[in-house]
Formats: sequence, structure tokens, C-alpha cells
Amino acid sequence: MSSLDAKFARLGAENAPGQEVRQSADDLKSVMRGDTLPGVPVDFSHGDVDAFEPTPGARAAWEAGFEEGGSQAYTEYRGAAVIREDVAASLAAFTGAPVDPVDELIITPGTQGALFLALGATVDRGTKVAIMEPDYFANRKLVAFFGGEIIPVALHYHDDAPQRGPDLGQLEAAFKAGAEVLVFSTPNNPTGVVTPEDTITEIARLTAEHNVTVIVDQLYSRLRYSGESYTHMRACAKRPENLITIMGPSKTESLSGFRLGVAFGSAPLIDRMEKLQAIVSLRAAGYSQAALKTWFHEPEGWMETRIAQHEAIRDDLLKIFRDAGFPTACPQAGSYLFPELPELVVSPEDFVRLLRLQAGVTVTPGSEFSPHTHSSVRLNFSQDHAASVAAAHRIVEMVERYRA
Amino acid sequence: MSSLDAKFARLGAENAPGQEVRQSADDLKSVMRGDTLPGVPVDFSHGDVDAFEPTPGARAAWEAGFEEGGSQAYTEYRGAAVIREDVAASLAAFTGAPVDPVDELIITPGTQGALFLALGATVDRGTKVAIMEPDYFANRKLVAFFGGEIIPVALHYHDDAPQRGPDLGQLEAAFKAGAEVLVFSTPNNPTGVVTPEDTITEIARLTAEHNVTVIVDQLYSRLRYSGESYTHMRACAKRPENLITIMGPSKTESLSGFRLGVAFGSAPLIDRMEKLQAIVSLRAAGYSQAALKTWFHEPEGWMETRIAQHEAIRDDLLKIFRDAGFPTACPQAGSYLFPELPELVVSPEDFVRLLRLQAGVTVTPGSEFSPHTHSSVRLNFSQDHAASVAAAHRIVEMVERYRA
Repeated sequence: MSSLDAKFARLGAENAPGQEVRQSADDLKSVMRGDTLPGVPVDFSHGDVDAFEPTPGARAAWEAGFEEGGSQAYTEYRGAAVIREDVAASLAAFTGAPVDPVDELIITPGTQGALFLALGATVDRGTKVAIMEPDYFANRKLVAFFGGEIIPVALHYHDDAPQRGPDLGQLEAAFKAGAEVLVFSTPNNPTGVVTPEDTITEIARLTAEHNVTVIVDQLYSRLRYSGESYTHMRACAKRPENLITIMGPSKTESLSGFRLGVAFGSAPLIDRMEKLQAIVSLRAAGYSQAALKTWFHEPEGWMETRIAQHEAIRDDLLKIFRDAGFPTACPQAGSYLFPELPELVVSPEDFVRLLRLQAGVTVTPGSEFSPHTHSSVRLNFSQDHAASVAAAHRIVEMVERYRA
Repeated sequence: MSSLDAKFARLGAENAPGQEVRQSADDLKSVMRGDTLPGVPVDFSHGDVDAFEPTPGARAAWEAGFEEGGSQAYTEYRGAAVIREDVAASLAAFTGAPVDPVDELIITPGTQGALFLALGATVDRGTKVAIMEPDYFANRKLVAFFGGEIIPVALHYHDDAPQRGPDLGQLEAAFKAGAEVLVFSTPNNPTGVVTPEDTITEIARLTAEHNVTVIVDQLYSRLRYSGESYTHMRACAKRPENLITIMGPSKTESLSGFRLGVAFGSAPLIDRMEKLQAIVSLRAAGYSQAALKTWFHEPEGWMETRIAQHEAIRDDLLKIFRDAGFPTACPQAGSYLFPELPELVVSPEDFVRLLRLQAGVTVTPGSEFSPHTHSSVRLNFSQDHAASVAAAHRIVEMVERYRA
């Protein structure tokens, strides 16, 4: 089983968000400095759905789904037709391009489920896949799992970059080198950078020209800060024939506990994804699907309030890290922040563990997002405002304690 | 993408339960005989959770999980620790062998999710896998998806078989031919046959001797009819080192709409399954997991009543099909019935579609379960009693109409 051993060695999940509870801390004692720092523990590895509660009506929609009974428990594998119809209309309006609810949309167990199916439908042994660095850690693991080959493309995200977004020269080179698939997130996870309009247009043109399948993860595309614009590739006039867009209500809308996502786009790919879902998990939990009836139908002003609250936290944390001298890109959308820490006397991975043990602060190590971002950490700042500000100060204090 | 085309061609889901709504019927007009048969439509492709409702307390448990908030929404990938503890204790008592809740159990999105993870953790390109014929259709598709090679083993299920269960000679030959994995269901899906104690003991001995990994799907092992006994392989004195048992509350307990399953057994395999789950769907829906708190804690007498109700339906349907001369094995557990139909003037697949169109009866074609069972159909008789009896009579009438 040695090939399986190798395959699973590449899927290490020890540092993945939420898995920290399985770590031991015995080996850290020799490098530990100082006492614990008091304060409310904050888990920045994911959003806090107690601080930002699920959208109004989601629970009632689940209950109505439960009462509907069998027809809601056993939907088509791609999800209940009536729900797909409503969601497709909302997504067409949101993205500015039509979505056929019958053939162009699938409901999945979370956006993770959508990503898995999309890559499973397009990546086979030897398929070359262009991946941004940094980007969501599962993208690389999924390509490895399906036996594909990663062609990395740098994402320029620092504030002093002449143009934020993927390096278009490297991207075109990847396509010329045989990349058949491109997967990327915008806003980018972990930096919050939104790929700008002219770059999206150019990526759409290039992928159409090179016949590249594009999977674009737009999970956070509803939570956009003041003055930021957003471009949906699927609405570009010239765009690739095979294009899948992924979204879901787990983040901004705090419905992660329902495990819901959607993928929409090219019908032949959606068809493959459904066939795969049939052997992976059958369908997104039937009663959960009913919560999608509330998606894009939040009460008047609800989204504006949620954005304003996140923007206020973003501004406070950004100031704390920048004042401390940590280079930190300003997130344009979503709730991820990716500060770069100075050189420390401990490894970045150990520092992350010390942060949790001594300061009650959980962050995700930058090494999860690319081989070149070891010195950064990712924070999901969808948290209690005061607690997250106090926790950011503790991060700065811990950095000073362990500074090289 | 030709290798992917081939891969997905093997995953055809057109005849899978619940997918019939996507079929067109235009081509059937030329072979159709007679009018439609009146009666309440019955979908035997899966159990009817309106006829047999979810276990008491499951909905309230979900609601309590929702109210618990973040800690229930974001569990470890393998599921909430406190819930695993309770479920592990129940499963240890039920199967007669200990289950470590920390390392030996994972909660998955349905038992389909558990099967996918278990095969993903053990089957790679070229891995030889022993598969019973007939058995649950996804087993074969999963092996194909992961690039494994199927070694078929006959399951003797007819009432006149000298010994019901897998052919032990063929099974040993499969191991000698290099099968590294065995996956099978007991009670068997689609026949309801339970592999008897001496056979389970012998399979355990053989797989231990040949170092074969065993994945045993015991989804229906709680719904056992009068006088039937059941043997859990994991409780055998001599058993394989790598053994995963799969169960879940989707069937007998009617919690399919929650999408919950569990796999338990060898810690290194559970660990791999969790790593895979991290990129497949992260976790079973957090709030749904809370419903597992009610599993194995049903009210006094609830299970006995549910079994008695199913046994009464089983007996009635069995009599109808046997009186019509269709060879039909008597299910010992679960709610599947697998009658063999006589030769017809239309193909078995078209007959199944005609049944749905003309008689309002949905069944699953036998060809889904093995290449040798085209003339059978599978019924999940967890249905309204009167409606299922009437529907069984319509099946017989339709067979007479199309008899060759």
C-alpha cells in the first residue's frame, strides 16, 4: 500500500482549521518563554457563528423542510428542483449571467464538497492544474489526491504590488506548458484580495483561447467592503467554454453548520459532478437544503449591517498589525487577513502552537497556503469585535516575545 | 480528457434511486401495452420517511445542536468528540467489541460518505477488490472510480442454496489472486440475506490469513426479523487487522434527511478517512450530527414495533411475488426484496420505466447490483403497508401484460 501511504502523506490535516485539538504540546516546553497571556480565547481558524449568527429564517426553513418529509429528505442528487430554481435565479441576478436550474447547478455539502466534485470531474492522473500561490490549501491537496500536477502561479497581494491579482505572465506560461485546469479563489483565501476587472477579463480571454477549464471559488464574493468592485468571470463576453463558479452560505451568512454549497456553470461538468456526488455522499443533507430558500432573501439592510460590522473589525486589526510593522494586505472582501510576521526564534509552526497555548489565539499557519508564505498567519476575523482586537494585541505581544 | 470520459461513463447514475425524474419517456410509446393502472404511486427505490417517520427526538436534537451554536457547527472533521463518545459506547455494546471514540470512529455524511472514504483510503490504481454479486451498486462504481480492479465473488441468496452467503471457494480464490480489499454488505443489499455466523467466522479467518482489508456495510443490521441471528465480524476472535464497519441511522431510523453515517474500526484507516473527509466535505453537517445523540436511545419498544411493522409488509409482499411464481429470497433483515421476474417482451430496463409510467411504481433495476441479475428488481418495502401491497399487485399485473 506504499502508493496510498504517499497519497495520504500529502493530505496532512494536522494544521487544518479545527484540527488543533488533536495536537500534543509536550515538545514545546523547552522553547516556551514567559507565562500565559490572559484574555478571551479567540479561534481565528474559522468564523464565529456565535458572534455573527446564522441568517434570519434559516432555522425555520430547516424545520419546514423536516416537516415536508420524504420529498425533502430524498432529493435528486443535485438537490431539490424547486430550491435550485430559486437559487439559480438569485445567482443569475448576482453574477449577471443566466443559470439554468435544470442543467447548470448542483447543491453540494458545503463549498468544500463543490470544490471536491469540480476537481474530481476535471483532474485525472497527469492533468496539469494552474494554482495560485497563496490560495486555499485544499486546492493543492485535491489536485494531488486526483493525481494531477500543480503548476504554481504567483498571486501579487501586497499593497505595494503594481497590480494585485495573479501574475498574468506566469498564468499564460502555465497554459502554454499544458495546464488544462485553473482553480482559484476571488476574493483570495487567505489574503482577501479581489482579482480586478481587467485581470478577470484577461484570464477569461486566455483560458478561452487555450481551452482551459476554470473553477472559480467565489465563496466570499457577497461580503465586499466600501468602494470595492467585483467582476464575475462567468459574465465576461469572452469566457472559457468550461467554467464552474462556486459559492455557498457558510461564511458571510454563517450557515456552515448546515453544510451547503453550490456549483454552477457548464452543464457537462455539472453532470459529471452529480455522478460523482452519487458515490461520494448522495446529496447535501435534504433538510439542510431547505435553508437555501432563505439565501439571497435576507431582510432589507441585513447584508449592509453585516458588511459594516466586518469592515470595522478589519480596520482595527489592520491598524494593529501595521502599527506593529507586520506587512498586511488590506482585504477587499471576505473576512480573511494575512499578516506577515518578522523572523522568530521558533519555527512558524511552533509559534502558531505557542500562540494557542500561551495566548489563547488560534490562527492558521501560512505554510498551508503556499510553500512561500511560512512567515504569515491567516486570521478569519468574523469574530466578536472586542475579543478579536484584544487577541490581535496578544499576537503582537507574542511576536515581540519570540522575535529573533 | 478521454480518460476522464471513460471514468465518468462507468459512473452512470441514470437508473440510480431518485434519479428517474431526469429520464425521458418518448421512446417507450412504441412498446407500450394497455392503459395506466390506478393506485397510489409507490417509490420503492428508497424507504418512505413519511410512512416510517424519523426516530422520536431527532428533530429536537438538531434544534438543540443549532442552539449550541459554533461548537456544534465546527466540529473536528471526524465529528464532535462528545457525540463520538456516546455513539462509540452504543456501537461497542451493539457489536460486542470495544470502539475507541478518539481514534476508531468517524462520523460521515451518510453511510455513502463512509463507504466513499473507506474505499478511498484503501483502493488505489490497480488494487484488487473482492466484490459480492449481487451487492450495493456503489461498491463497484467506487472501486472503478479509484482505479481498482474488481474480483467478483458469487453471493448465494436463493432459498434453495445449500448455504446462503458468499461462495467461500470463490472468496479464497480471490484472495489467492491478490485481492487486498473485501467490501460487502450484510444484510445484503439488494437481497436482505444475512451472512451466517459460520461464514462470517470463516471470512474473518481467511482475510486475517491473507492480510486483506475488510469493509463491511452493516447499514441494516438493527432491523432483524423474528428468529434471525446476526454476527458482527469485528467481534470474531480471529479477525483481519484492517477492518472497518459501516452503519448509520438513515434507514431503519429514517434519518436520511440528516445525512449521517459512521465508520468504526482500525485507527490508521479511520485516520486516513478523516484526512480524505477534510478535502471531500470537511465534516458531516454539524447540526445534523447532534441527531446522533438519539441513536440507540430510542424509546422502549420503538425498535420492536418498527421491526414488526416491516416484517408484516415483508410477509405480504413475499407471498404476492411467490404466488405469482417469481423466485424471491426471504429477507432476514433490512427492508429490501429482490424478486426475479420471468422473461418479458421488453428489456428489463424498459420494463422498470414502464412500471413507473403505467403503474406508478418505482423500483431499481437488478442490473445495478451485478451483471447477472438483469431479470430482478429491488424494492425497498419501508413504505405504507396498504399502498405497497397494492403496488406489488400492480407489478404482477404488469409482468403478465409484458410476459414473453
